[in-house]
Amino acid sequence: MMPPCAWLVTLSVAVLTGNIIVAALNERTERNCSATPPYLPSTAVNTSIQLQELRAQMLPMNISAYIIPGTDAHLSEYIAPRDARMAFMTGFTGSAGTAVVTQTKAALWTDSRYWVQAERQLDCNWELEKDVSTSSIVEWLLSEVPSGGRIGFDPFLFSLNKQEDYAINLESSNRSLKSVPVNLVDRVWRDRPSLPPDSLVRLPDRVIQRSWQMKVEQIRSLMRDNPYQPTALLLSALDETAWLFNLRGNDIPYNPFFYSYTLLTMNEIWLFVHTDRVSEDLRVYLNASCTGALCVQLKSYDSVLEHVKLYVARPGVKVWIGTEYTNYALYEIITPEDKLMTSSYSPVLTTKAVKDETEQRILRDAHVRDAVAVIQLLMWLEKAVPEGKETELSAADYVNKCREKQKDSRGPSFETISASGPNAALAHYSPTEESNRRLTVDEMYLVDSGGQYLDGTTDITRTVHWGTPTEMQKEAFTRVLMGNIEISRTIFPSGTRGVNMEMLGRRALWEVGLNYGHGTGHGVGNYFGVHEWPVGFQSNNVPFREGMFTSIEPGYYKENDFGIRIEDIAVTLPVNTKYGNNFLTFDTVSLVPYDRKLIDTSLLSSEQLQWLNKYYDTIRRLLGPELDNQGLHEEKDWMLRNTEPFPGTESSASVSSSSLTLIMLAIALLHNII
Amino acid sequence: MMPPCAWLVTLSVAVLTGNIIVAALNERTERNCSATPPYLPSTAVNTSIQLQELRAQMLPMNISAYIIPGTDAHLSEYIAPRDARMAFMTGFTGSAGTAVVTQTKAALWTDSRYWVQAERQLDCNWELEKDVSTSSIVEWLLSEVPSGGRIGFDPFLFSLNKQEDYAINLESSNRSLKSVPVNLVDRVWRDRPSLPPDSLVRLPDRVIQRSWQMKVEQIRSLMRDNPYQPTALLLSALDETAWLFNLRGNDIPYNPFFYSYTLLTMNEIWLFVHTDRVSEDLRVYLNASCTGALCVQLKSYDSVLEHVKLYVARPGVKVWIGTEYTNYALYEIITPEDKLMTSSYSPVLTTKAVKDETEQRILRDAHVRDAVAVIQLLMWLEKAVPEGKETELSAADYVNKCREKQKDSRGPSFETISASGPNAALAHYSPTEESNRRLTVDEMYLVDSGGQYLDGTTDITRTVHWGTPTEMQKEAFTRVLMGNIEISRTIFPSGTRGVNMEMLGRRALWEVGLNYGHGTGHGVGNYFGVHEWPVGFQSNNVPFREGMFTSIEPGYYKENDFGIRIEDIAVTLPVNTKYGNNFLTFDTVSLVPYDRKLIDTSLLSSEQLQWLNKYYDTIRRLLGPELDNQGLHEEKDWMLRNTEPFPGTESSASVSSSSLTLIMLAIALLHNII
Repeated sequence: MMPPCAWLVTLSVAVLTGNIIVAALNERTERNCSATPPYLPSTAVNTSIQLQELRAQMLPMNISAYIIPGTDAHLSEYIAPRDARMAFMTGFTGSAGTAVVTQTKAALWTDSRYWVQAERQLDCNWELEKDVSTSSIVEWLLSEVPSGGRIGFDPFLFSLNKQEDYAINLESSNRSLKSVPVNLVDRVWRDRPSLPPDSLVRLPDRVIQRSWQMKVEQIRSLMRDNPYQPTALLLSALDETAWLFNLRGNDIPYNPFFYSYTLLTMNEIWLFVHTDRVSEDLRVYLNASCTGALCVQLKSYDSVLEHVKLYVARPGVKVWIGTEYTNYALYEIITPEDKLMTSSYSPVLTTKAVKDETEQRILRDAHVRDAVAVIQLLMWLEKAVPEGKETELSAADYVNKCREKQKDSRGPSFETISASGPNAALAHYSPTEESNRRLTVDEMYLVDSGGQYLDGTTDITRTVHWGTPTEMQKEAFTRVLMGNIEISRTIFPSGTRGVNMEMLGRRALWEVGLNYGHGTGHGVGNYFGVHEWPVGFQSNNVPFREGMFTSIEPGYYKENDFGIRIEDIAVTLPVNTKYGNNFLTFDTVSLVPYDRKLIDTSLLSSEQLQWLNKYYDTIRRLLGPELDNQGLHEEKDWMLRNTEPFPGTESSASVSSSSLTLIMLAIALLHNII
Repeated sequence: MMPPCAWLVTLSVAVLTGNIIVAALNERTERNCSATPPYLPSTAVNTSIQLQELRAQMLPMNISAYIIPGTDAHLSEYIAPRDARMAFMTGFTGSAGTAVVTQTKAALWTDSRYWVQAERQLDCNWELEKDVSTSSIVEWLLSEVPSGGRIGFDPFLFSLNKQEDYAINLESSNRSLKSVPVNLVDRVWRDRPSLPPDSLVRLPDRVIQRSWQMKVEQIRSLMRDNPYQPTALLLSALDETAWLFNLRGNDIPYNPFFYSYTLLTMNEIWLFVHTDRVSEDLRVYLNASCTGALCVQLKSYDSVLEHVKLYVARPGVKVWIGTEYTNYALYEIITPEDKLMTSSYSPVLTTKAVKDETEQRILRDAHVRDAVAVIQLLMWLEKAVPEGKETELSAADYVNKCREKQKDSRGPSFETISASGPNAALAHYSPTEESNRRLTVDEMYLVDSGGQYLDGTTDITRTVHWGTPTEMQKEAFTRVLMGNIEISRTIFPSGTRGVNMEMLGRRALWEVGLNYGHGTGHGVGNYFGVHEWPVGFQSNNVPFREGMFTSIEPGYYKENDFGIRIEDIAVTLPVNTKYGNNFLTFDTVSLVPYDRKLIDTSLLSSEQLQWLNKYYDTIRRLLGPELDNQGLHEEKDWMLRNTEPFPGTESSASVSSSSLTLIMLAIALLHNII
């Protein structure tokens, strides 16, 4: 699944038309606040009461505006229902956005992926701002809040960088940014969902190379080697603590995380969790009854501020935090300055980014089984769609069921994007009863889905056509594929940043004036988040080293018409070059063939065609035995049919003497034959 | 000329061997401080006295360490002799570096381009630190300065960002960074060069589209449109003021700049210069006798702090500064915070980055004349080198003389890099009497040179071989050329950053495990700096828009053996694409053919070969008439010989149906013929 694009948002709003199964054909699906009376679709949420109550909370605190981010105290990308404060206030359920409320106005900022959805879900209390930059929000605040006014925020929901972004710009214009210790939305959210009761679970030994004790020692040695001599490391992101202790939980949909913080010092470990969810077995596993260097002292999740304050009060301490994932509430208590040490990412995140041998092996294994499920979906659709009964929803349901049957399945890794025709032009569309389209041989179909397995997280997108694609569709698909291949086959020095290579995914599209408005790839984890930062192709991602897994996912979206995305997961591996050392390339671990009908091989370079044939050979080699083992003969036939080598790779792409020789040879041969 | 590379420094130190003309053949050219007694080459500078005197200055100020950057108060890349404080203190004359002095130690930080030079020029008072990051300097300071210690710096020589970098890291470790208002080096520098007496000059109307009044209005309208409502703009970089008033000076070698600052408000203009250098004519030109919105009030250069303080004291003002080029001394007086507004670059720098029609036309014109000079050099060397009398220095001298003969010449735009064999492997080498090599048919030769003309600044690098290159040399040269072509021919959306495309310049090298350790390109100006930021391919450069000029200059350097760089200037132009709008590509304005002997066309793709032939056709079209006009018949013949089209572009690079058709056609034809 693709991440948002930090540097380019070119997608326009696509208006859905035709072929909707459930919704009345002529019903307008988006609000129209300039009509009299304003028109609201049935999907819009009436937010008048919560707005009125929130404003009442703001008044006594002397706050002119209140900022409501769409994240949680761990700055998570996916959040639990109890943290969906932005959705509660606005009605908008997209995964990215920021809401701001004043006494007279309310506005929501979100990116192009969600503009249509926002117009369907917001009522007319809300302005929609089609921008996501902090500077856009600040400009709005400057126009709405008078000089001297105070703007409130919950410090648990802001990263340090975010707070600085706002503060610098607001305070230079004489508005103050006020950290409000109690969340004002929670005060008016009466039926706020409670915490799930699920216990934490430890990973089985077969998926682990490093015990939690080994990981603790590894991180402590990084602390010891740091020239700034930190005495403690404070972990805030949910996957940091889960990784360190080889634990998983169930607090966040699609993500096996649990609410937690960790304070790791050279001789103590404090784990902040809901301690009632830690079983007796786990306490033994964690050495929770002692206080030594390899004993995990369990502390109440809600006591993190209090305990960090106690630690910071000790003389001579220095706390290391990663600024991207530490909330402002924790940051602001680490004073004075010389007790704080920062880096963008904690050493846990940068260490986790490089998978160990076991993690690499099992993540590859998970992708073999995952490919079986996706191939089952594609094979079934090929037969079922022409019969006219299948829909986006039934297809999504089918692939989820196929994954469930695979060994160690732990459900989908995100809500499946199953999108036909114009729906696929909405980059982050997931089907609903209202929007659900029937699948037909006349439309392109895009399916972006992934699974959680005990051994790994998967994420793959395929785009297919069951009828006759147009020339434009074939060209766009081929150029997206060329982008995927160009990144996959590139050779680069270890330490190169993804952002400096991601244009290879766009270049074949740029040549004919096409582009896409989302990012080109993100890290993935071992039974973790499907977007596992800081690996990937975004500007704030870390340089590529050997053993990192990332998605590669260029796309193209034609408004009101179709959407294409081709997404694979690949791992960085060392490569032998003619002259140099320390170069890497990608090895694709997703194993599902592309729709042959949509590939115009005349556009591919010889190198691209060679890569494609080699990839198909790899699919046969790795997936064939798995399909045999699972007794899936029809699937194996389908796979073999769809991985036939493409002809033509003998020719050279360069005007080389060898290719001229080849031509002359062919001429000579033909001459003799004729 | 190539900029340093911010993200990769892979070049190693190359040791010079053999073929040195003047230096005794067996003399060790680098210091050896671990020998007893320490060995110092004749090029090393004894710095004991200045160090002793500086340390005496530090004592009463209670400063444990003093930082000496290699820049001036305008954060210039090239500096005047009177600002060469780092060189005075250390003996090292490279253009980039930072020195730090404590009571017992002294250390110099510089990048890989200069390590050999530093080992030749430093005496054993100095440690050489092979790193340029602020964090490396900070780590050194933390180990040398005890907790509680004070580290001094001249606030005029630090940018705001630089000061923050140091301060955050030092202060978190309990060392304080102390702004010292008087420069301590100046206090001990008795024979510090004085200011040149040259008057400022205005540009003639024929090279100007926008008068200074028009530019002032243009910048004021950007201030007016800014949501933060600045009331004044403070210009610190020397090219900002020079550009705004269409003035040039002679204070900095190779750069037509003069010491200056400007404070521009909505109704006043304060120009801070050495007012005795402003002639009566110029005072009239600048409207210097009045105080209205389009009158330039001349203020003494040295009064800038005092006047900015007076302005800031006014109620309701807000001063806009660009943080990359404003020194900390100016920044720290703009208080409180709400009187300050920052962006990375001032609106003058971002406006200047896009050339107007006249600037584009005359900059192209300058490149036509410049190509004549470079072709004269290459043609002459072809004949003269085999006779065995020419050297790096004589070649540099020759090209400077060729440029001087061209219309509107204003001298070289930087010190010519004329480098043979292993000397060319030192990326920023310029020949000296000691290092000067004889040019021979057995070595590759690299010449990176540029001219200042009244209408434009040029910068071009060609690498040639007069004998028989090795296969490795041909392959490396061809792959560098492929990098140059791949960037030049790429099509990209307007607004794409150079840093996101520059890997195209490296990719052909990466494929075989090669790379280079410098940046890939920088903006150039109209009779301005040869490195005109913020245009280029560095990470802090602005996105490309139509009408920007940049160098494109990949390279490859083989230690102790040879160096290759191919550098052209190109302008961004709109391009028609099949489907989209608002796409750009590069148009190369340098017009000198590449050494045919070094090009292995079998490595080139058909697209690359097509680009090359089209470029050679452009050279013939634009340069032919100029050579005719100047009556340079031999040069024209040379140019025509060296721009013969390469065969083979009919073949397609892709294994397309059309290329197969072509082969079949050839077969059929041949069959009939045979």
